[in-house]
Amino acid sequence: MEESVKKMDAFFNPRSVAIIGATKKVDKAGYVIFKNFATNKLRGVFKGELYPVNPGEDSILGFKCYSSIKDVPGEVELIVVIVPAKIVPSVMEEAVSKKVKAAVIITAGFKEVGNVDLELQVVAAAKRGDIRVLGPNCLGIFYSKTGVDSLFLPETKVLTTGEDVVATPRPMPGSIAMITQSGAFGVAALDYLTGRQMGVSKFVSFGNKCDVTEVDILGYLLHDKETRVILAYVEDIKAGREFLKVARKVTTKKPVVVIKAGKSEAGARAASSHTGAIAGSDKVYAAAFEQAGIIRARDMDEFFDAGKALAMQPPALGKNIGILTDAGGPGVMTVDELELEGLTVEPFSDETSQKFEKLKADGFILKIAATHNPVDLTGSVVDEQFEISADLMFQDTEIDGIIFLGLHHMPGLREKYIDSVAKVASKYSKPIVMCDIGETEMALYTRSRFDRLGIPSYSSPEDAARAMGALVKYGAYLQRNNCAEEYIKDFVEKRTKP
Amino acid sequence: MEESVKKMDAFFNPRSVAIIGATKKVDKAGYVIFKNFATNKLRGVFKGELYPVNPGEDSILGFKCYSSIKDVPGEVELIVVIVPAKIVPSVMEEAVSKKVKAAVIITAGFKEVGNVDLELQVVAAAKRGDIRVLGPNCLGIFYSKTGVDSLFLPETKVLTTGEDVVATPRPMPGSIAMITQSGAFGVAALDYLTGRQMGVSKFVSFGNKCDVTEVDILGYLLHDKETRVILAYVEDIKAGREFLKVARKVTTKKPVVVIKAGKSEAGARAASSHTGAIAGSDKVYAAAFEQAGIIRARDMDEFFDAGKALAMQPPALGKNIGILTDAGGPGVMTVDELELEGLTVEPFSDETSQKFEKLKADGFILKIAATHNPVDLTGSVVDEQFEISADLMFQDTEIDGIIFLGLHHMPGLREKYIDSVAKVASKYSKPIVMCDIGETEMALYTRSRFDRLGIPSYSSPEDAARAMGALVKYGAYLQRNNCAEEYIKDFVEKRTKP
Repeated sequence: MEESVKKMDAFFNPRSVAIIGATKKVDKAGYVIFKNFATNKLRGVFKGELYPVNPGEDSILGFKCYSSIKDVPGEVELIVVIVPAKIVPSVMEEAVSKKVKAAVIITAGFKEVGNVDLELQVVAAAKRGDIRVLGPNCLGIFYSKTGVDSLFLPETKVLTTGEDVVATPRPMPGSIAMITQSGAFGVAALDYLTGRQMGVSKFVSFGNKCDVTEVDILGYLLHDKETRVILAYVEDIKAGREFLKVARKVTTKKPVVVIKAGKSEAGARAASSHTGAIAGSDKVYAAAFEQAGIIRARDMDEFFDAGKALAMQPPALGKNIGILTDAGGPGVMTVDELELEGLTVEPFSDETSQKFEKLKADGFILKIAATHNPVDLTGSVVDEQFEISADLMFQDTEIDGIIFLGLHHMPGLREKYIDSVAKVASKYSKPIVMCDIGETEMALYTRSRFDRLGIPSYSSPEDAARAMGALVKYGAYLQRNNCAEEYIKDFVEKRTKP
Repeated sequence: MEESVKKMDAFFNPRSVAIIGATKKVDKAGYVIFKNFATNKLRGVFKGELYPVNPGEDSILGFKCYSSIKDVPGEVELIVVIVPAKIVPSVMEEAVSKKVKAAVIITAGFKEVGNVDLELQVVAAAKRGDIRVLGPNCLGIFYSKTGVDSLFLPETKVLTTGEDVVATPRPMPGSIAMITQSGAFGVAALDYLTGRQMGVSKFVSFGNKCDVTEVDILGYLLHDKETRVILAYVEDIKAGREFLKVARKVTTKKPVVVIKAGKSEAGARAASSHTGAIAGSDKVYAAAFEQAGIIRARDMDEFFDAGKALAMQPPALGKNIGILTDAGGPGVMTVDELELEGLTVEPFSDETSQKFEKLKADGFILKIAATHNPVDLTGSVVDEQFEISADLMFQDTEIDGIIFLGLHHMPGLREKYIDSVAKVASKYSKPIVMCDIGETEMALYTRSRFDRLGIPSYSSPEDAARAMGALVKYGAYLQRNNCAEEYIKDFVEKRTKP
């Protein structure tokens, strides 16, 4: 690992943190951020030293407050800066003399609003002191394991009604790293991931990226054992060559899914007034992502859906998909979307067809069932038929992955199929994703059960098909780079067992 | 209204119903369906006469059971048939002599599995007796207002654990008619619509459509005052000319959104083994839908999202969209998707720009806010800024509709903006749709509040953009047919007031 990347560790595992601009005023970002750390220290999650810095306060939440970092008795590895933009360069000067290792600058009002010089002063100080800087104009870091949480959006919010509600939830620990140029999208992502029970390994909002860029973060995550999949929101990438270099290294080890905003002309204009990003030609980005094995999501739903599939299932080593369903129409919709994605749904081999014919002859599945791929067990399905059909399909060497449409509505289903399909799937190293349609109790419950058993669930046939598309795309990339076998072996060893 | 269409009324408002194949066996479709009607009669919702017909029973759920329809003392307007396929023709013969008006044939095992002759016998009897037939191989009708519910999937289901859970919910009354060739998709749609609190006017699953086709149903819904939007799932349409004729009549009065399954070659093959549909060239369908002013959804999410937008908002009379946001990144994503849809996000007129500059000068909105469309009020937004900005944007004659990205996370938002934005919107006859991203408490609450105030909410920027796309598409169609003004006038008069 390069030295500069190693230094990034101070953002995630700091032994000491100073919050520059901590305050007692509960409406201020400086209060929320200090309280995050203080609470996590109280809980025993954040184990480092914590110092509020603010010349106007004696103590905050029971912690002695310092006028400047220079007055802090011990060492300070990480500073989180929330003072007005104009003061930030002088804070950085003090950080240099204090031998700080890393700085998260939350403060906005730099390059993005035209204050380029101010940002250059920050960069110059950081270079002199060998300090890695995240931001400015960012949310910084959330890392549940060590209690680093520089998000100034409080977890709960008090409404005018006086009610206290969860507004910006922090996700549970997990294997997805979320990195983002847009703070607001980052916050929204935390809310989404928490609600969908997708665990997060590291969250990084990098804003203006005056020093630490997506290149550094990818380099760090490459070696991060907790991260299995990387989700990235970007508006522009400046160091194209370095980015490609590190991305190629990462993508042979772990999938990267990206959402690139500012694709269209008007979008690029909007991005420019948002983060000062020069979005550049979308074709160049498309080619670069393709070359680096990065999976590009078309929209937000696909972004999270692909991430979920790649976190929970091995990639597919071919593009021919088997469909197992109890719902004819949604089965047809799945086929349509797979073909649109460039995948195939070929009729089964004679061997598999004969096995299905025997199941029919033995009365194990209904005579009216369609069994040539899609396998449509119809609304008369019972739990056991799903289990044995899935097993047969997994055995077919021409099937590279399975989409399972287990609509819970069918009267003969009694919930047993959930565990048994998951058990069958765990015997194979081919991917499976599932779909159940509906937004009430039983649908939500069924999808959540499958998720917990390691089978990613989706609420529409097309979402499931696109998620499978991501698994096929990533599998093809690994094969081209001769590392599919190794990746899958490792994945299967570590995956969630039902 | 044509006579044949008028006869369709017996499906929805029957004065008397006989359930042929009603049974006491609780696992059977004949039990579930009879119980639906019996329960609705008990509740006082179904006000007609109810007769179970089954030669093997004396009474079911307290109702005297008859051996044949011929033994039923009074008239029978509607029969619901759940006897084995082979017996159905003889049931139809009896129905002819009983002068039945309409028959829902739930039973499968006809044309879709090759039993063409059997289906022809049913059709012949129906013709002779002038009986309108829905099905066979369908779920039939759900109409909450009169308690007609021929769905054999029980509302709740008992799991192996003994727990009783809602499995196939019935939606609340509303303005969306859902018609479907696939029963399974229909059931899934009921689950989706219920969960998303989208009310349904009429639900019709038409299966093999041996007599009643989408043409008849559209003809009926054209005159149905309760239906404002029609959602249709189809795999094939046989009477192309008649379909176009009636569709054109309907679409100038109410929008029709269609999902056409079997688009791809493999999809068409799957559709053929599903409903025996001959899907035909997708290009022909695309052209026909276009010509008839039918909005074609690309996938399930867009299908429901477009339906929701069209049910709740007036169409747009142009394609230039204003974006109001507190989240820069999601704003850029919205612009990207709008451009992809062929819509535009032009900078504001000088007049509107000056108004925004004045707001900045007066300190009413932040100096760092972007105000050239998108309007990005940034994470520092407070409730009142949304209200006044929305109002300014609605006033701009070059803005045809607004996408409002009100991410609830921003610390300065206190829920007041929900009511005030809805109030502003109600002053104008231009459409507005909103997006809040997240899957936890506050996001779900915020979206649901907007929905109830008549502003359709979406969980991703792209979903909101596509929903606006549907409003623009429908508006352009109405304008081409010189009926936009009339439609919008009527819509605005009847819409939900905040």
